[in-house]
Amino acid sequence: MTTQQIVLASRPQGTPTLANFRTENAELAEVKPGEVALKGLYYSVDPYMRGRMNDAKSYVQSFHIDHPITGGVVATVVESKSDNFKTGDLVVGLLPWRKEFIASERTIQKIDATIAPPSYYLGILGMPGLTAYFGLVRICKPKAGETVVVSGAAGAVGMVVGQIAKILGCRVIGIAGSDEKLSLLKEEFGFDEAINYKTTTDIRKAIADACPHGVDIYFDNVGGEISDAVIYNLNNHARIALCGQISLYNNEKVAMGPRLQSLFVSKSVMIQGFIVGNYQSDYPEGIHHLAEWIKIGKLKYTETIVHGFDQLPTALLGLFKGENTGKMIVKA
Amino acid sequence: MTTQQIVLASRPQGTPTLANFRTENAELAEVKPGEVALKGLYYSVDPYMRGRMNDAKSYVQSFHIDHPITGGVVATVVESKSDNFKTGDLVVGLLPWRKEFIASERTIQKIDATIAPPSYYLGILGMPGLTAYFGLVRICKPKAGETVVVSGAAGAVGMVVGQIAKILGCRVIGIAGSDEKLSLLKEEFGFDEAINYKTTTDIRKAIADACPHGVDIYFDNVGGEISDAVIYNLNNHARIALCGQISLYNNEKVAMGPRLQSLFVSKSVMIQGFIVGNYQSDYPEGIHHLAEWIKIGKLKYTETIVHGFDQLPTALLGLFKGENTGKMIVKA
Repeated sequence: MTTQQIVLASRPQGTPTLANFRTENAELAEVKPGEVALKGLYYSVDPYMRGRMNDAKSYVQSFHIDHPITGGVVATVVESKSDNFKTGDLVVGLLPWRKEFIASERTIQKIDATIAPPSYYLGILGMPGLTAYFGLVRICKPKAGETVVVSGAAGAVGMVVGQIAKILGCRVIGIAGSDEKLSLLKEEFGFDEAINYKTTTDIRKAIADACPHGVDIYFDNVGGEISDAVIYNLNNHARIALCGQISLYNNEKVAMGPRLQSLFVSKSVMIQGFIVGNYQSDYPEGIHHLAEWIKIGKLKYTETIVHGFDQLPTALLGLFKGENTGKMIVKA
Repeated sequence: MTTQQIVLASRPQGTPTLANFRTENAELAEVKPGEVALKGLYYSVDPYMRGRMNDAKSYVQSFHIDHPITGGVVATVVESKSDNFKTGDLVVGLLPWRKEFIASERTIQKIDATIAPPSYYLGILGMPGLTAYFGLVRICKPKAGETVVVSGAAGAVGMVVGQIAKILGCRVIGIAGSDEKLSLLKEEFGFDEAINYKTTTDIRKAIADACPHGVDIYFDNVGGEISDAVIYNLNNHARIALCGQISLYNNEKVAMGPRLQSLFVSKSVMIQGFIVGNYQSDYPEGIHHLAEWIKIGKLKYTETIVHGFDQLPTALLGLFKGENTGKMIVKA
């Protein structure tokens, strides 16, 4: 049986383009014992994929040239030679950008579509939601009344961070790149203030104005000059969860910025870089809290769904232009 | 009664000079109830004093123009109107650069010269020793077998950090600025390797060579390019205690350096800026361990003692030229 797959055709220099991808036909192998045949339903595109397009050693393995891109995929079981899965089951896993594919039973988990739509397992109940949960709760340890700033606030992680911080009684300021996103943050997600970094001339002052008691917690999804501006407003004993650094991902050389270590010393600042996988053994705790908050209506969620398997490369490139609001998903 | 004092004559632009200080006569007031008259024995000069010479808000108050410099001083009680102190007692406190002075009983602590020489209470049993202890033990949580790199390794803090790390079973690499210091680190203090940052052309490679299993802990006393070189050699889940940033103290503008946050994310690095005062309630624990290690001969200590009260400004300026080995002390 023939299916379609999207492979990495070449490694990007700087910002990736459609020419770095290639859609091609592929043959589907037979299902062996312990395996299932899957049909992809929803495919996740995420900022961390940019790093995997490089050859460099990173926290996740590089994609291989002429091999399919892999990422979070929700799929339905169409044939099973596993005792754990039956035809019609919905599953999630780190899987290839193929329309149909074979997977080992060890690489997929069943999902429960009765508590949330299947695509949520690529977002708020998946990697981005868990990243927000563990980065904020475990690393930053927010206390009620503290001020939390989130950059990339309208992204898949940021919008969850801000809402959890509100649930925990904090004042929350989001930084995002369009007035539409600002409205969403304040009106839909309950952020106290939001700052448009593209139209604000003095972002350091804008943060100071929005945070009259200074910044206790900074959840950093972007890095670069936006982060510098937040850092100058930190309080003593501030905590920074260093999550993504999307502003730096497409740089071919290491960008330069101010050395702010003296400030970190004088204010006793703690910075923790992390990837969500560090907390893998505690995922059930995170999913439990997130699902509960969704159920009682305290945690809202937005997806940008792009239609068509062949749109996957375009959707991924769109992340770096800020075209998504919330989690970016491609529906096959 | 007339005594002598050293005041801040002017605020330095960049590196301080002797012209920023002035020695002058001062009148000694009467001793009031609850006060003691003290004669200074040993005066501490420390890198953090550079920050206090500025007008800027820092973690310690600025020195005032035309007022005496203040710092750690060991003194002897020459007259007491306090129930807690008697003539002849040895005390330590944050006190003025004066030959004789009056102090409130609340600003001084008695010291025990039977467990260590009095000057040790300005160093290994004082602020630098406690900085090393809490920065390494509390922040970096070393495990036996891990690799620890210390910059400013031959300084008052660094040489204690390295020795504690050895006591705790780590491999220890020190970075310092002269071959004499390197010999001291390896032969006197038991460091496994030492690197001369002034004569090494590729410090990043030198660290990689000295740390075949990578760097788990970095105790950063200097900042700047030396720190960059260490950071490129960090292992996953590395910890950085951000103590001093002496390479940056004399810069009038914020220095620029590479943005290394992506590396902190991908390797889940933790960075904690701190000042020793954060651990004030636990000082007795630190003094207990340090004194015990000294007593059993596991912890060695080196002082550079400069003679003459009037040499205080010169001794302080010497810190920024790397003229000290170990703790720099002025004996009146």
